[in-house]
Amino acid sequence: MPFVGPIATLIEELNRLPGIGPKSAQRLALHLLNRPAEDVRRLAQALVAAREEVRRCSVCADLTDRDVCHICSDPRRDASLLCVVESPKDVVALEKVRQYRGRYHVLHGAISPLEGVGPEDLTIRELLRRLEDGTVKELIIATDPDVEGEATALYLARLVHPMGVRVTRIARGLPEGGDLDYADELTIARALEGRREI
Amino acid sequence: MPFVGPIATLIEELNRLPGIGPKSAQRLALHLLNRPAEDVRRLAQALVAAREEVRRCSVCADLTDRDVCHICSDPRRDASLLCVVESPKDVVALEKVRQYRGRYHVLHGAISPLEGVGPEDLTIRELLRRLEDGTVKELIIATDPDVEGEATALYLARLVHPMGVRVTRIARGLPEGGDLDYADELTIARALEGRREI
Repeated sequence: MPFVGPIATLIEELNRLPGIGPKSAQRLALHLLNRPAEDVRRLAQALVAAREEVRRCSVCADLTDRDVCHICSDPRRDASLLCVVESPKDVVALEKVRQYRGRYHVLHGAISPLEGVGPEDLTIRELLRRLEDGTVKELIIATDPDVEGEATALYLARLVHPMGVRVTRIARGLPEGGDLDYADELTIARALEGRREI
Repeated sequence: MPFVGPIATLIEELNRLPGIGPKSAQRLALHLLNRPAEDVRRLAQALVAAREEVRRCSVCADLTDRDVCHICSDPRRDASLLCVVESPKDVVALEKVRQYRGRYHVLHGAISPLEGVGPEDLTIRELLRRLEDGTVKELIIATDPDVEGEATALYLARLVHPMGVRVTRIARGLPEGGDLDYADELTIARALEGRREI
C-alpha cells in the first residue's frame, strides 16, 4: 500500500511539477514533513504570493510584481535599443553580463508549428506597437539559436524592416573556451559564415 | 540583475529543497507562474495540510494523519511479527511486495556517529516498550544493507536478544535478474556467506 491521506496528496501535487518524478516527489514530501512547520508555511506563502502578485509588465511583458517592471521604469536604460527574447529567463541571463543597457521585450515563447504556437500566441502585437513612435532605433533579436528561435527571428525581421528600424540578430559561433574539434557541424558552419576581418 | 520581488522569494524557497539547484528552482518558479492560480493554491494547501495533519503513529512511528496508522489499526495484520525499518519510504517499499502481513516499527534514521545520530535520536525506546508484553515473537530487522543500517541492526539485536524475542535480519545477496560478474565484491561475499542447500 503506498502513502495515503495528506502525504499522498502532497506527493501527487509535487509529482505534477516538471522534472519531479514519483521518487523525487516522495523524497521532497518526506523532507518537508521533517522541516519546521514555519519553513513549510513560508514555501506555501511564497507560492501563493508569487502567483498572485506576479504579472506581465505592461510595457515589455517581462514578469514583475509592478505594473511597469524595474527595467522599463529605469530612466538610465537606453530607450533606443530594444532586445527581443523568448523568456524571462533570457532577460536574467543577459542582465548578468552587465553589458547591455537597452530595454527588453519578452515574447513568452517562439513560433513552433509543431507545438501549435503561432505568432498570435506571442507578444508580437505589443512589440509592434512599441516600435510605432520611432523611439526604438535598433531591434536586437536574441531568440534562441534553434529552429523555433530562428523562425521567430526571421518572422519578426520581415515585419519590422518596413518600419525603418534597424534589425540585428545576436551572433552565432564557437562558444568562448570551446574546442573546435568538439563543436558540432552546424556551430562550425555558423562560425565560418559569421567570420570577420581581424 | 537576477529576478526580484516575489519571483525571487519563490525561487529562493524552492532552491532550499533537497536536489533542487538554482536552475531547477528558476524553471519550477516560471512553470508555476504560468499555471492557473487554482493549481498553485492547491499545491500550497497540500503543503500546509500535510505538514499540519501528518504526525507519527503513536504505535509504530510511521507517518500518518491519524493517532494510530492504518496498518497498526488493521486487525488482520499479524501482531506477532514486527519489522523494523529506517524510514516511512521503507514501509511503502515493503508493502508494495504484498507478502509481509506483520506490523512495522519506523526508526526514523539509523545509528551514524559520523552524522551525529545516536540510538537516542531513533525510536528505539518506543520499540523496546512494544516488545515488553510478549505479543511480538519475531523482530525482523530491515534496516538498509549499508554501514549505518548494519550497525543499527547489531545494536538492536544485542538489546532485544535478552527479551526472548527471535531476531532476524533480511537476507543480503545478489539482486534478482542481476549479473554475477557485474556485482560488487561485498555483495558477492554476502551472497556466498548466505548460501543455502538446494
